[in-house]
Amino acid sequence: MKEITVFSPATVANVSCAFDVLGFAVAQAGDRMTFRKTTQKGVGIVMKNFRELPVDPERNVAGVVALAMLQKINPDFGVSIEMEKGVLPGSGMGSSGASAGGTAFGLNQLLGEPFEKTELVKFAMLGEALASGVAHADNVAPNLYGGFTLVRSTRPLDVIVLPVPALLSVSLLHPLIEVKTKNARNILKKSVLLKDAVTQWGNVAGLVASLFSNDFDLMARSMQDGIVEPVRSLLIPMFYALKQAALDAGAIGCSISGSGPAVFALSADMDTAEKVTEAMQKVYAATEIPFETFTSHIGKQGCRILNDNKI
Amino acid sequence: MKEITVFSPATVANVSCAFDVLGFAVAQAGDRMTFRKTTQKGVGIVMKNFRELPVDPERNVAGVVALAMLQKINPDFGVSIEMEKGVLPGSGMGSSGASAGGTAFGLNQLLGEPFEKTELVKFAMLGEALASGVAHADNVAPNLYGGFTLVRSTRPLDVIVLPVPALLSVSLLHPLIEVKTKNARNILKKSVLLKDAVTQWGNVAGLVASLFSNDFDLMARSMQDGIVEPVRSLLIPMFYALKQAALDAGAIGCSISGSGPAVFALSADMDTAEKVTEAMQKVYAATEIPFETFTSHIGKQGCRILNDNKI
Repeated sequence: MKEITVFSPATVANVSCAFDVLGFAVAQAGDRMTFRKTTQKGVGIVMKNFRELPVDPERNVAGVVALAMLQKINPDFGVSIEMEKGVLPGSGMGSSGASAGGTAFGLNQLLGEPFEKTELVKFAMLGEALASGVAHADNVAPNLYGGFTLVRSTRPLDVIVLPVPALLSVSLLHPLIEVKTKNARNILKKSVLLKDAVTQWGNVAGLVASLFSNDFDLMARSMQDGIVEPVRSLLIPMFYALKQAALDAGAIGCSISGSGPAVFALSADMDTAEKVTEAMQKVYAATEIPFETFTSHIGKQGCRILNDNKI
Repeated sequence: MKEITVFSPATVANVSCAFDVLGFAVAQAGDRMTFRKTTQKGVGIVMKNFRELPVDPERNVAGVVALAMLQKINPDFGVSIEMEKGVLPGSGMGSSGASAGGTAFGLNQLLGEPFEKTELVKFAMLGEALASGVAHADNVAPNLYGGFTLVRSTRPLDVIVLPVPALLSVSLLHPLIEVKTKNARNILKKSVLLKDAVTQWGNVAGLVASLFSNDFDLMARSMQDGIVEPVRSLLIPMFYALKQAALDAGAIGCSISGSGPAVFALSADMDTAEKVTEAMQKVYAATEIPFETFTSHIGKQGCRILNDNKI
């Protein structure tokens, strides 16, 4: 294989109550990445859009992941990575996770699959460390595994793939303002009341149970975040209006995607998800803030091959 | 029906990481309670053992539950409750929960089942409020529903019954020292670090997933409590020696039952659970502290009818 093109999905992390542990892949939004063997060793980066992102591999999310993988294998060739980002940096939809996870997945294919999926997650976490200062797996786990993933622990890494109710769909509204993950982390309180933590893990338990039992009513009751959402929503204009509009339009639940500013809502099927997206659009159309929206199935698959050149 | 005798199971609440939300019923340990219609209105209590417990119905856990139920129905008869406790008060194995839940269940049968199960939980919570000052459902939910129950919320009450892996068994060692639930609550810190709370709800999510997927490895990795166990274990002599002995003997996980002092361990089957009980016994046999042990399947059923007199 000389080159391969992969699709690397957007992801929603911090699913409501399940801050830092639960995430899912978005089927119809993501990056397109092509990996080519080069005679010159090392890593070259070509940005097809977002040309302001650094192409120095040591300062590029995809670059640091690729460098670490190549260092482990030490092949007699190099790799060029051509990226066309569909997930906007700073959106809260796992932009750096898509670059990092897509590189781990795509380059592993190009190298003849020397690494297991868990190792791919670990490589991809290096990209997250560069992007946000924290080597978290919230986005790269669903990006690589697909569906809903639970990152029970990062040290040691323990990723559990949870079932996805068949028709579950997602609406996303991304206000085109930037919220840096670092800032969104810094405004969180360092400690919480035990009673609030108990409420939160009761809801996390309910949310996980709802995925196994396809119980959307339970999912709706469980999608309540009393710890992170009340703080981070301050950084998202009209957050509660968006949430109310989504719920009124039939969404199961609605919260902040990752560290924001994107807002996601889950619905029982695509028809409802489309109505929910429309309802959220209306809220933002009445403001001056530019935005983009997505409506998608949950991505049962994570990163996937679009085409390869086996010659 | 003039009288009915029921079995009301012991329960393990605060299952490791899942403080205040998860509990399960113990099949082979519990109270025996007989409910008889009396011509005189009101509630009479007869203690067949533990005669030091108050028999004034307003000061007795079973009594307050029965009074509340009778007040709602206002039948033209009264009830006498004869209790033979198998769950020792102050054991941490849901003693007050067994009295309260057993009364809700048994009296409902005697009255012709006017109440739904959720209502029975609410009545039983009145007994818990008398016993511990907090109207919690951690014990009465598994006592009434059986199996593993998640109390996602108490206000409003939301009990979710979770699946029980077929052969899952429990070992219990109850040191015969008393730890009052009130005291065990008071020593807990009022707040926790957000990062510790996140670790905890990651583990709660893993534990719930393990029940659905019969994944005992995941259950083992998830049964880690970094918040409550480190504090409450101080009240339990030799706790960490017990825990180590249980794990060495093959237990999946081990933690404090309820607010202690009983310690429980889960095992994949009864054979292992018996070995685990023996291993725990050895630890305590080397001390001067009296103790009792139990080995049991998880009680798939909660309270159940032993016999009734339909005449």
